[in-house]
Amino acid sequence: MDSTVKRFSLSEPLAQAIPANKSPELRIREHLQGQLHAGVTIPPRTMAVLPLTHKNDCAAVTVYDGNLWRLAELQTMQPSRQVMGLAVDLGSTSVVFTLVDLQTGKALPPLSLPNPQRQYGEDILSRILFATQNGVEHLQRPILQLFNQAIESLCRMHGLAPGDIFYLAVAGNTTMCHFLLGLDTSLIFREPYMPQANTFDVFPAQELGINCHSEAMVYIFPNIGSYFGGDLLAGILATGMHRSEGISLLVDVGTNAEVVLGNRDWLVACAGAAGPALEGGILSCGTVARPGAIERVSVTNDNGTQAISYNTIEGLPACGICGSGVIDLLAALFLAGVVDSTGKLVIERMGDRAMKTGDGWAYTLANSSETSHGQPVYLSQSDIKNLMRSKAAMYTILEVIVSSVGLKFEDIDQIFVAGAFGNYINPRSAITIGMLPDLPLERFKPVGNSASSGAVHLLLHHTAIQEVKEILGRLTYLEMNARGDFMKLLTAAMFLPHTDASRFPTVKR
Amino acid sequence: MDSTVKRFSLSEPLAQAIPANKSPELRIREHLQGQLHAGVTIPPRTMAVLPLTHKNDCAAVTVYDGNLWRLAELQTMQPSRQVMGLAVDLGSTSVVFTLVDLQTGKALPPLSLPNPQRQYGEDILSRILFATQNGVEHLQRPILQLFNQAIESLCRMHGLAPGDIFYLAVAGNTTMCHFLLGLDTSLIFREPYMPQANTFDVFPAQELGINCHSEAMVYIFPNIGSYFGGDLLAGILATGMHRSEGISLLVDVGTNAEVVLGNRDWLVACAGAAGPALEGGILSCGTVARPGAIERVSVTNDNGTQAISYNTIEGLPACGICGSGVIDLLAALFLAGVVDSTGKLVIERMGDRAMKTGDGWAYTLANSSETSHGQPVYLSQSDIKNLMRSKAAMYTILEVIVSSVGLKFEDIDQIFVAGAFGNYINPRSAITIGMLPDLPLERFKPVGNSASSGAVHLLLHHTAIQEVKEILGRLTYLEMNARGDFMKLLTAAMFLPHTDASRFPTVKR
Repeated sequence: MDSTVKRFSLSEPLAQAIPANKSPELRIREHLQGQLHAGVTIPPRTMAVLPLTHKNDCAAVTVYDGNLWRLAELQTMQPSRQVMGLAVDLGSTSVVFTLVDLQTGKALPPLSLPNPQRQYGEDILSRILFATQNGVEHLQRPILQLFNQAIESLCRMHGLAPGDIFYLAVAGNTTMCHFLLGLDTSLIFREPYMPQANTFDVFPAQELGINCHSEAMVYIFPNIGSYFGGDLLAGILATGMHRSEGISLLVDVGTNAEVVLGNRDWLVACAGAAGPALEGGILSCGTVARPGAIERVSVTNDNGTQAISYNTIEGLPACGICGSGVIDLLAALFLAGVVDSTGKLVIERMGDRAMKTGDGWAYTLANSSETSHGQPVYLSQSDIKNLMRSKAAMYTILEVIVSSVGLKFEDIDQIFVAGAFGNYINPRSAITIGMLPDLPLERFKPVGNSASSGAVHLLLHHTAIQEVKEILGRLTYLEMNARGDFMKLLTAAMFLPHTDASRFPTVKR
Repeated sequence: MDSTVKRFSLSEPLAQAIPANKSPELRIREHLQGQLHAGVTIPPRTMAVLPLTHKNDCAAVTVYDGNLWRLAELQTMQPSRQVMGLAVDLGSTSVVFTLVDLQTGKALPPLSLPNPQRQYGEDILSRILFATQNGVEHLQRPILQLFNQAIESLCRMHGLAPGDIFYLAVAGNTTMCHFLLGLDTSLIFREPYMPQANTFDVFPAQELGINCHSEAMVYIFPNIGSYFGGDLLAGILATGMHRSEGISLLVDVGTNAEVVLGNRDWLVACAGAAGPALEGGILSCGTVARPGAIERVSVTNDNGTQAISYNTIEGLPACGICGSGVIDLLAALFLAGVVDSTGKLVIERMGDRAMKTGDGWAYTLANSSETSHGQPVYLSQSDIKNLMRSKAAMYTILEVIVSSVGLKFEDIDQIFVAGAFGNYINPRSAITIGMLPDLPLERFKPVGNSASSGAVHLLLHHTAIQEVKEILGRLTYLEMNARGDFMKLLTAAMFLPHTDASRFPTVKR
């Protein structure tokens, strides 16, 4: 393994030891440097426990500090202890913790916990306001407590001790990483739109009071500015698009649509507001991905009449509809003729699914008898309007970034689609509503939680620390608002699938 | 200054700042990297106080960790705070602390404190025995307390705060450095004569609980083994002999005579027991260098009759005789014919200075009426025997090392004489008794406390950390007991100045 933490048997340098008349420190240091092809530092507390005489079962755990390796602990070889890393996807809604065995490369099932900062505001701007007015420590303390709580739970679950965790890799957006470190966020979303820090050095976990091994290190993915955070850089790392010859597009769909285009020679990125609709937010019956959320919707042909059916997460009674379900549903309604190409509900095609709400007409996906809360799950006309705006923004951002480098959609070899959707987005549905370009389905690669995957990847490849620096140096950030024709393009995309239907030949069919 | 700690104004990177739309972290990091021509790391607690907007009077204090520079503190430019380092000569008898202003290079007067480990034994072997039986923490705790006590006293004396100290450079013998770090000394002076550690990485002072700046770093000079410690490496560094083209000899006279010979191309070293006589130890009236110690003795011609006169440290009534005084005295007695070339007192030449002690005849240097304690200060026949053995050992070690590389004494361009003598050794006296070779006096350079000077040098030259590594890699250690003819050579040297008087032509005259 090429992990950030490595474990070596010391029986060889300790055996050759005595005749060479060198101290154990020097023999072990030279041995490890030979194995690691890099410098090794030994802190005083580890030096004091170096065995003076030959021990057959002695092992060294070394931790990469971003430049050198640090001898973090001496262990006995048998019984073998586990050497773990913790990958953290630091989201503003939920934080996903994944323990990784750094010797085998195996990741354990992730633990997702709600971000406790939500008590100071659901959205990031309210939290920044609170931090600016009352002190960032109010935001930093609960997130650090969450880290320790997650470590405790995961260790209990898997029969581990916090001291078995030697590395943390954290991927989060710019604001979330600032809160974690207690940094100043006050200028992130106002002039001059500037974070306090772009890049972070590997530092000891105990500097933040994180309860893991006393020599454990923390890596935080860097950001390029207010709108392009470490979660995106982790995403690029996870897809490997920066290493491939073909051109890839990475799309992270969320309230902010974040997009990266490029290959091993060049990378451009941009971000733009898409609104929360595509994640299931703000919709009448939208929900985050949780048990009972409708995550898949399809048109079935039931005895010659078209019907729309759905699946929920864990098969529980429906409690709402999450991102992947919403995109499926709009596509299904469009294909079934229930929604026309302007996004208008066609009442006469809705049958008994038609429902009148305080907000106008709506399509009922689940009756009150089927749901967990006894209320129907539906999509209203104004929900559709929100969705149309979001999908149009998404498509326009893709159009702008691709054309800005003189390319066409057809030139793209792979499209990685990431986002907190619940299930992977169905690319067929996303194409149907004109959110993603009409390319052969095999070019779409779902990447799920790419921030988590990138953090896991980094734990398992210490060279990725340098790789991320290189990505950072190569990536050009495009300002979306610099394009004069953005609004014109957006308006053209406010149609199902698009005012220019020739762009979507497979939908036309 | 090329110091281990540097201070930079940040008005430039902060001013250019805002238009470049880069975070203050990135602007400051790039600015400092440009100034330092090396990587800069920023710990979270410093990052959190980086100013978001332009400040004219902001300064960064950076500390060298042996590989990279660490941004340790942000200060206001005015009023200018002092950035200090602490050089420590960690001796087994006394510990000498020297504060150094790392911006001007000025060293403040040193503070010498007795080593509190002496409660566990005057000599190193007793302390090792105590540590092995009772735990090294008994030796480590008092020395760390002494560090904190010295820092407090020095700061009070000079109107500084412990937080103004950003760097410590410690030079001590192998055992003393092991005690400081709480390392295992049990095999240092028995088979296989092996310390637990040879080289030490720069580490944060707070890891040992030393009360200085929270980001302060500690450098400890490495050792080559049990007999060649960091104090000697600091000595080499202080003389600069490893950079000069001509051949130098560094002689550290003490209970162990430690000798280094070489130039910028090669270095050989050896050490051998000389006994404590030359430092003023074990002699009937010997004392460490302290106020009242006789540090200079000379033959004066008083109205045609030769008389012997002395000076004490600070001009106080005599309390004993220290190293430099003892060597002067033996030379004076020999020149005055009071001691013959075999080292025997000539009673008829002593006049009223003759004194009968329980131990045989003695020469009275100071009458009881002149001394602080009301006892005479004298040199007995058996003292002279001890001195003859020590000076012979010293000379033989020099003879062996010089001949082992096929050189003669005449080939040596400079001789650096170090040691805890009180005053600098008078080379004329040392030649007279045959302790040092009979070379032109201008080739002798007193270096005083070379361990302290080396530590001060390192504080003021961060590149010296690499330089010491190179010295270490280039230095060959000769085993004295490997020479079969050592005892024969030693016996020949047990004469004043030597059995072969032709070696000392100036003494003959």
